[in-house]
Amino acid sequence: MTEKEKMLAGELYDCGDPELLELWHLGKDLARKYNLLDSHDAQGKKEILKQLLGGMGDNLWITPPFYVDYGCNIFFGNNCEVNMNCTFLDDNKITIGDYALIAPGVQIYTAFHPTHYLDRFGDSADSDFNFCKTETAPVTIGNHVWIGGGAIIMPGVTIGDNVVIGAGSVVTKDIPDNTIAYGNPCRVVRENKRMR
Amino acid sequence: MTEKEKMLAGELYDCGDPELLELWHLGKDLARKYNLLDSHDAQGKKEILKQLLGGMGDNLWITPPFYVDYGCNIFFGNNCEVNMNCTFLDDNKITIGDYALIAPGVQIYTAFHPTHYLDRFGDSADSDFNFCKTETAPVTIGNHVWIGGGAIIMPGVTIGDNVVIGAGSVVTKDIPDNTIAYGNPCRVVRENKRMR
Amino acid sequence: MTEKEKMLAGELYDCGDPELLELWHLGKDLARKYNLLDSHDAQGKKEILKQLLGGMGDNLWITPPFYVDYGCNIFFGNNCEVNMNCTFLDDNKITIGDYALIAPGVQIYTAFHPTHYLDRFGDSADSDFNFCKTETAPVTIGNHVWIGGGAIIMPGVTIGDNVVIGAGSVVTKDIPDNTIAYGNPCRVVRENKRMR
Repeated sequence: MTEKEKMLAGELYDCGDPELLELWHLGKDLARKYNLLDSHDAQGKKEILKQLLGGMGDNLWITPPFYVDYGCNIFFGNNCEVNMNCTFLDDNKITIGDYALIAPGVQIYTAFHPTHYLDRFGDSADSDFNFCKTETAPVTIGNHVWIGGGAIIMPGVTIGDNVVIGAGSVVTKDIPDNTIAYGNPCRVVRENKRMR
Repeated sequence: MTEKEKMLAGELYDCGDPELLELWHLGKDLARKYNLLDSHDAQGKKEILKQLLGGMGDNLWITPPFYVDYGCNIFFGNNCEVNMNCTFLDDNKITIGDYALIAPGVQIYTAFHPTHYLDRFGDSADSDFNFCKTETAPVTIGNHVWIGGGAIIMPGVTIGDNVVIGAGSVVTKDIPDNTIAYGNPCRVVRENKRMR
Repeated sequence: MTEKEKMLAGELYDCGDPELLELWHLGKDLARKYNLLDSHDAQGKKEILKQLLGGMGDNLWITPPFYVDYGCNIFFGNNCEVNMNCTFLDDNKITIGDYALIAPGVQIYTAFHPTHYLDRFGDSADSDFNFCKTETAPVTIGNHVWIGGGAIIMPGVTIGDNVVIGAGSVVTKDIPDNTIAYGNPCRVVRENKRMR
């Protein structure tokens, strides 16, 4: 397996691998160019997003600045909206369904490390920086999800359909369909019922 | 009523309305230019802020980057300071009194949506993205308020005079005069007394 | 004492002092240039970081955008990594040991104010904006520390060696060696043991 394949399989991988590093630079440069475009330049935005992202449906609206790790592991459904200053750390797949509303400052993470430094660096902890061990887990977000501003979604989390995540939440566990959840850590607070 | 008038009245409005969209692009482009200025360029900053904001008193100091939705619904009093990387989502009025200290990474929101997807999109949920329903409520911040870093202020919140909001707070309810409040959710912790 | 010396000593100082203001502009301009570099430009990044920071060891990797107050009060050990969109408000020293992993959106603060407005501005509160009183306290981070995404580190905090701070934490107190800590406010949850 290549390091990229290991990364996407959630296995320990070397994030300093040349193929991965080049993909990383490509993602960074495309995102920086996106963030500097004139706001009216819908065509320029669309072209960069097509190059940057793994997949996108119709009517994707991402308000700059938008920050990614690679970009190519992010997949959007149709009619999704991402507001200002969001960070998608896509070291594994971030899959987002249709009609997502992602508020400003939301951060989605897919990468993590062993917590003990000797597990992160091996017993040669002082000898080689490149061997910092990283693992990944995908994030999956259903259809019709609204994620409130400043929320953080942790690696491996699945959020169901018709879910609202409150602003400032830290989502550490899966959130089931048809619920409203918030807090740090994020907990389901009630059913998401029709009100009108 | 125009869609802009509906927006500011807190009524359901179409955020894809051409007049609103042009205002939105204008705010985005002015903020991006502001964020790229040389730090010494006090005159350039002042000129952009005069175009961008709804109103500003004397001695306004906003450290880039600064992110807005429209900009024109933000009103500052005298002697206010906004630190780096703040986001003001001004879909309704954000009114800030005199002597505000707003720390880095603060986010102020005025827009929200119905929580159930069928209330957001109507029964034709799968047919038309432009009808995502959005509502707004103003945020009002008194005089001599210090908002700690990374705090989130939710739509409709009023913060009184001489208030300190702790770093990382999520402010979901009004905060009365002369108090210190923090936490997620933010609660009043004690009276804000003179210490010196 | 100069205002800069007072600032670093944690005494009340005038942040509008011309020497400090020029250092502040220099930090802001260097950081903005850093954030606009091509991602591949390792040499350009290194040159700016050498000018910007107070000190840096080998193998420092800071992913743009990176925001500082002055920059010159930030000291990194060897083999440190700072991910996207972090804010280091270095009005006092921020000292980081070897092998730090700092995730996206982390904010480190060293500045604070008296909480009551009359203590911040003196009894002439309405007459002179420049006398807003600011104090500082250093932040010290040990070796082999991993700070999770979106965490906030408050002024005066010391974090020990081999510590993990969970994502979205607000760290208001010192965290001892060999612990895992998280939450708002951040509390030690367990010992950081070897697992593999």
